Amino acid sequence: MKLKSIHLARYVTGTPRPDDFEVSVSDLADLGPVAEGQVLLEVEHLSLDPYMRARMSGRASYVPPTPLGSVMPGEAVARVLESRHPAWNPGDRVLSHTGWRTHALMDGERLRAVPTTGLSPTLYLGALGMPGLTAYTGLQEIGRIQPGETLVVAAATGPVGSMVGQLAHQAGARTVAVAGGETKCAIAVEKLGFDAAVDHRSSTFADDLEQACSAGIDVYFELVGGQVFRDVLPLLNPLARIPVCGLVGQWDQQGGNEQSASQLLRTILDRQLTLRGFIVSEFADRHRASFESEVGSGLQSGTIIALEQRVSGLMNAPEALVDLIGGRFLGKVVVDL
Amino acid sequence: MKLKSIHLARYVTGTPRPDDFEVSVSDLADLGPVAEGQVLLEVEHLSLDPYMRARMSGRASYVPPTPLGSVMPGEAVARVLESRHPAWNPGDRVLSHTGWRTHALMDGERLRAVPTTGLSPTLYLGALGMPGLTAYTGLQEIGRIQPGETLVVAAATGPVGSMVGQLAHQAGARTVAVAGGETKCAIAVEKLGFDAAVDHRSSTFADDLEQACSAGIDVYFELVGGQVFRDVLPLLNPLARIPVCGLVGQWDQQGGNEQSASQLLRTILDRQLTLRGFIVSEFADRHRASFESEVGSGLQSGTIIALEQRVSGLMNAPEALVDLIGGRFLGKVVVDL
Repeated sequence: MKLKSIHLARYVTGTPRPDDFEVSVSDLADLGPVAEGQVLLEVEHLSLDPYMRARMSGRASYVPPTPLGSVMPGEAVARVLESRHPAWNPGDRVLSHTGWRTHALMDGERLRAVPTTGLSPTLYLGALGMPGLTAYTGLQEIGRIQPGETLVVAAATGPVGSMVGQLAHQAGARTVAVAGGETKCAIAVEKLGFDAAVDHRSSTFADDLEQACSAGIDVYFELVGGQVFRDVLPLLNPLARIPVCGLVGQWDQQGGNEQSASQLLRTILDRQLTLRGFIVSEFADRHRASFESEVGSGLQSGTIIALEQRVSGLMNAPEALVDLIGGRFLGKVVVDL
Repeated sequence: MKLKSIHLARYVTGTPRPDDFEVSVSDLADLGPVAEGQVLLEVEHLSLDPYMRARMSGRASYVPPTPLGSVMPGEAVARVLESRHPAWNPGDRVLSHTGWRTHALMDGERLRAVPTTGLSPTLYLGALGMPGLTAYTGLQEIGRIQPGETLVVAAATGPVGSMVGQLAHQAGARTVAVAGGETKCAIAVEKLGFDAAVDHRSSTFADDLEQACSAGIDVYFELVGGQVFRDVLPLLNPLARIPVCGLVGQWDQQGGNEQSASQLLRTILDRQLTLRGFIVSEFADRHRASFESEVGSGLQSGTIIALEQRVSGLMNAPEALVDLIGGRFLGKVVVDL
């Protein structure tokens, strides 16, 4: 049997390209024997996420950089083929940070069983996984949205943004989606229940956003940075909160007519804003149980929608990540192996 | 008897100058009779504070702008001359937002008695007043300093900064003062108990600060902005907190080689920073009792020091405010009338 894996071929500036990746093929036997405490996994579904772009830059950020030549990082739903760990048996379905490969030898301590809820296992990579938990903890710990307040989120049809919008709506907020193009804006309102949606590709974006937020903005859930942040700033109400957990629109930032850090600091003071960077691991333990229970039952009953797109085959993962960064997907992107 | 008052003659950009102010002299009788519910006050001590500069700009900020021609705003210790309010009697000593004038007719509901603790009444304009409460609430609500952490504050010999340093030191933090010139740095360490002090006028400031903060910075209490903020940024530890309650070093900001707002946003994300603008009124009610009790007994017992400089005569207030903005005072500045 063959072991295929995809590696980082060179550090990336700007948008990643297919030749930034390198494919490796070898015999599965080359992995060597399963050591005491290890399991051999076969990857079934690989998660693609914006943070992967951050790890391709060769510089430290909120995630460590992936060294050149290493397997691309990523979480997956996998099946246990062999086990030398007492907790796992062949056939078990687990969540594991295998990276982009067909098979992996993993430490049995670092796996988690996919809960048997009847829901699709891939949801544990999206709405019930890291992206959903990011939305949940960011709202609970930093956004602290109140009924009647206005929340704005960009990348609103993505796996984090779509969950931010739905959770804030359930909390009684007015929710405004920012998304790229008419199709995504329509889906945000019709499928995800946003009260309004604004197309950031439109030349009238700043005006459209102001119209959609006639009572100002109380929570801006920051996933993209760049132009959207610049146009959100003047609309923020006093005491507004900005959970910052992604800046995926900012990789190619050219500056433009944006504020200086000093001007931003003055806005923070004048309007008593809270800006708070966070990563999901910081608050995960405190919230995982209530998160899985609330979102799980919402998904079961249909009061929460999970958008998901599938890509077929590990070899198509590089192009899919490029498309993901370019905003050409709807919802969670999963590669089926 | 004459009523003297000082008015805003023109909106200010950059550093205020003496001719931005206008003196008015009239007969005290021109104030008219004391109406029902009012008191007539004679001002004894006028507080000078950096926020006054913000109100001279003609634009909205965290305080409303003072209209052209209006009396300069300010808090004072005053004595009641006449009262038509049941709570006040002639001779009472009160705290009141009279503005820059020798006498004022004020609503009796909006006065507060100077507590009779045996401490100097002017302390209620400084260490036991708005500046001290700003330090206290900013540390309690946003800084949340922990024993062993490192705190940096600029304008460290000023009324807020000196209290921030002393309160953080008592909480078990390592405290680093930023101040202008050798004299202030010496006073910060020797009188105020900072563990180290760094002169922001030195050409080696950035290096000196890095040396003084060898374990990074966990709380940066932001009073000045500008260059100090720029040099603090690279030293901030993950999860650092930045209470932002003043930017007095930033009035003449020319840009320079500073970060863009987008770069700051990325730093906030990468290091999971909290930036939070606040004004003292937001948290005052929740903390005033414990603040007055703790700081009051610290001042009584000598474990807390209040630095204060006096200026004599209302007519010298404009020049004193110019000097205050220019950093030419130590501690709280009070004008004795």
